[in-house]
Amino acid sequence: MDDNLHLNQHTSQKYNEELEDIRSRVLEMGGLVEAQCRKALKALVKSDIDLAEEVATSDYKVNDMEVAINARCTDILALRQPAASDLRVVVSIIRMAADLERIGDEAEKIGRLVKSLEKGRDRTTFRSETKHLGKSALSILNGALDAFARMDVAAAIATAAKDPEIDDEFEALTRLSITHMMEEPASVKSLLKVNWCARALERIGDHAVNICEEVVYLVKGSDVRHLSLSEIQERYL
Amino acid sequence: MDDNLHLNQHTSQKYNEELEDIRSRVLEMGGLVEAQCRKALKALVKSDIDLAEEVATSDYKVNDMEVAINARCTDILALRQPAASDLRVVVSIIRMAADLERIGDEAEKIGRLVKSLEKGRDRTTFRSETKHLGKSALSILNGALDAFARMDVAAAIATAAKDPEIDDEFEALTRLSITHMMEEPASVKSLLKVNWCARALERIGDHAVNICEEVVYLVKGSDVRHLSLSEIQERYL
Repeated sequence: MDDNLHLNQHTSQKYNEELEDIRSRVLEMGGLVEAQCRKALKALVKSDIDLAEEVATSDYKVNDMEVAINARCTDILALRQPAASDLRVVVSIIRMAADLERIGDEAEKIGRLVKSLEKGRDRTTFRSETKHLGKSALSILNGALDAFARMDVAAAIATAAKDPEIDDEFEALTRLSITHMMEEPASVKSLLKVNWCARALERIGDHAVNICEEVVYLVKGSDVRHLSLSEIQERYL
Repeated sequence: MDDNLHLNQHTSQKYNEELEDIRSRVLEMGGLVEAQCRKALKALVKSDIDLAEEVATSDYKVNDMEVAINARCTDILALRQPAASDLRVVVSIIRMAADLERIGDEAEKIGRLVKSLEKGRDRTTFRSETKHLGKSALSILNGALDAFARMDVAAAIATAAKDPEIDDEFEALTRLSITHMMEEPASVKSLLKVNWCARALERIGDHAVNICEEVVYLVKGSDVRHLSLSEIQERYL
């Protein structure tokens, strides 16, 4: 009996460690993805081609982490048969890792675009607007990962609430680009690339919002992914 | 003893039915998403604003299906504690539903963009190129869903192998757009919208490739999402 109890405790503690391990792996993956995004933005704003090259070629690390996290999650599902909130953690982590992987893809895309921008003034167009947009996107990503680390629903909702600002910034930047392209047709090609970078930043914000929604699901057990922000706030704050 | 046996059979049969049910729900969701994409493409090519409106406002059906499929999958994980290939089915279906939902988002985006295109010749620019790109994307989506329905690894790989053509078509269309914008600056705004539609079609192809990769994972048990096509072909064909 004592032995059994001991065994159970041991098993349970090991299980806790496994759950803790996938949680910390996601945070580690999040940290790597954040660093990739920061580098991508810096490469874009400073026209740093070496840094762009680095971002464009190191996405495989993020991909490897996603594959490893998925394998761990599937093992836990198979061997531990988690229930209730543990099950939500595992299912959420599978989806979060997919979002982080896609954020990594967007950073990689920015790296490739920056590399392809031509030297000279092309690289400086809309620098401050893009920088601002990028900082907003990074702040949402950081907030989302932080809300996940602390399992903080209020922080997750407050972070997601900032996304519409990014969309507005992106719209404004696009309108500016259009005007600029019309006035200066020779700039079309490079402005289009700058606009794609801005789109990638905006999508980073969208994926970060998905992570915020996973935090609400994790803690509250409700799938809020297709509710409006005001509905989420009304129900969970 | 007989009763137990009967109960077990019954339970197992019900479990089989549950697995069959989520599989058929994904196929149903796939059918709906395919229909949305077909309508979006038709709205774009025919400048059919009513159809565009329909596509832009009916994405909630796809979203509802994703939420329902996720809930079913989580229930099965909690109550049936699937192992081995059954577990792969459930985990894959969660990810596939996410891809289908994102394909639905892209169709919705095309609907909104078509609505915002101005009357007249704006709507006819690059019509045949976009139509061709759209047909390629739809064919990959159809092939992916078909490969899933038949659990056919060879078909999944053959379908995924067509994606680079779509990327090339998109690149070619973008180059054409750039030339056109430079020659006719007044067309910038609408050409940018047409290009975003083309980008959405290209992304539909990307998500369909993800579904193909899930089919390989489902049947073979290996995560192939970050392998190159030639690596996948070498290992699994």
